[in-house]
Amino acid sequence: MPHIPLSPDLPGIRGAMAFRPDTARPLNDLVDILLRGPGTLTLGERELIATYVSSRNSTEYCHNIHGAIAAAHLGGNEALVRQVKADFMQAEISTKLKALLVIAGKVQQDGKLVTAADVAAARKEGATDLEIHDTVLIAAAFCMYNRYVDGLATAQPADPAFYRERGVRVARDGYVTVSKEYLASHSTAAAR
Amino acid sequence: MPHIPLSPDLPGIRGAMAFRPDTARPLNDLVDILLRGPGTLTLGERELIATYVSSRNSTEYCHNIHGAIAAAHLGGNEALVRQVKADFMQAEISTKLKALLVIAGKVQQDGKLVTAADVAAARKEGATDLEIHDTVLIAAAFCMYNRYVDGLATAQPADPAFYRERGVRVARDGYVTVSKEYLASHSTAAAR
Repeated sequence: MPHIPLSPDLPGIRGAMAFRPDTARPLNDLVDILLRGPGTLTLGERELIATYVSSRNSTEYCHNIHGAIAAAHLGGNEALVRQVKADFMQAEISTKLKALLVIAGKVQQDGKLVTAADVAAARKEGATDLEIHDTVLIAAAFCMYNRYVDGLATAQPADPAFYRERGVRVARDGYVTVSKEYLASHSTAAAR
Repeated sequence: MPHIPLSPDLPGIRGAMAFRPDTARPLNDLVDILLRGPGTLTLGERELIATYVSSRNSTEYCHNIHGAIAAAHLGGNEALVRQVKADFMQAEISTKLKALLVIAGKVQQDGKLVTAADVAAARKEGATDLEIHDTVLIAAAFCMYNRYVDGLATAQPADPAFYRERGVRVARDGYVTVSKEYLASHSTAAAR
């Protein structure tokens, strides 16, 4: 049961966002730019970084929904997403993405753990400055989204079908579109 | 030395933001709404929450600049800010803010640590649903800003005078205004 009154129709971050739409706007804009905007990491790679960080934070809603979006971008390859969560070094992903996930995993714990050697290793595999920047910011941002979802004790459905259906829609339509549609139809924000 | 080329004139988050202005926009909008926008927590209380979380994350730039902004909002009371960082239970702040700082401290570790009893204790001291929401989101957001600043190994000046001067200006003018001025005069963003 959520710590504050959130709509039961809106699990995870969506209930929290509907509670305060004016803070939801920059939260949605940020995820949309980072995970959908201009950049040289593929949409699947970005979602895998978000999924991995959310999995390490044990935030069920976030690692399931972003895992589903990642799978949708990767031709439905849910096994690959599971492997990245379990042990990305054994996953069939590029060596560049592995080096970036090392950085993301350190940011998830504490940004100060990222070393010059970690960054040099990513560069050696072809990572650009922008890709390193974006990896750090995606990992940092999901440490925020995960804590927002968990800290309010939002509802986090257990049914994989829920995430799969929404994952396909977000992969196709983007975050802002899907979120606006929900906010418009479900907003419960009281006059404050 | 930063992990990617950031302007030496822009320490802390400002160098990171100048590197990618399109992600800086929602990052600035979020902090501006949370710490300056509509709400019933005072500006000083919000800055103390941000300062406390940043201090627990040991992010020098963030806890010094937000501590300086908090002090500016609190009539220059730097001793109070230091006491909140060291042991807020002994600080001369309201019992409501103490209860909210307990929640913020748990979010800083892991949102799942926040209990119904923590939230009930805050309500008993007069905290509203919106104040509880905002406390969770401020704490979560600073776990992002702190990791962004540390994960890129940004420059974090040691001179207290640097933070004091800027703290007074941000307290007076707000985040977006001060940031826009710096971005306009210093942006080093390469064509990407």
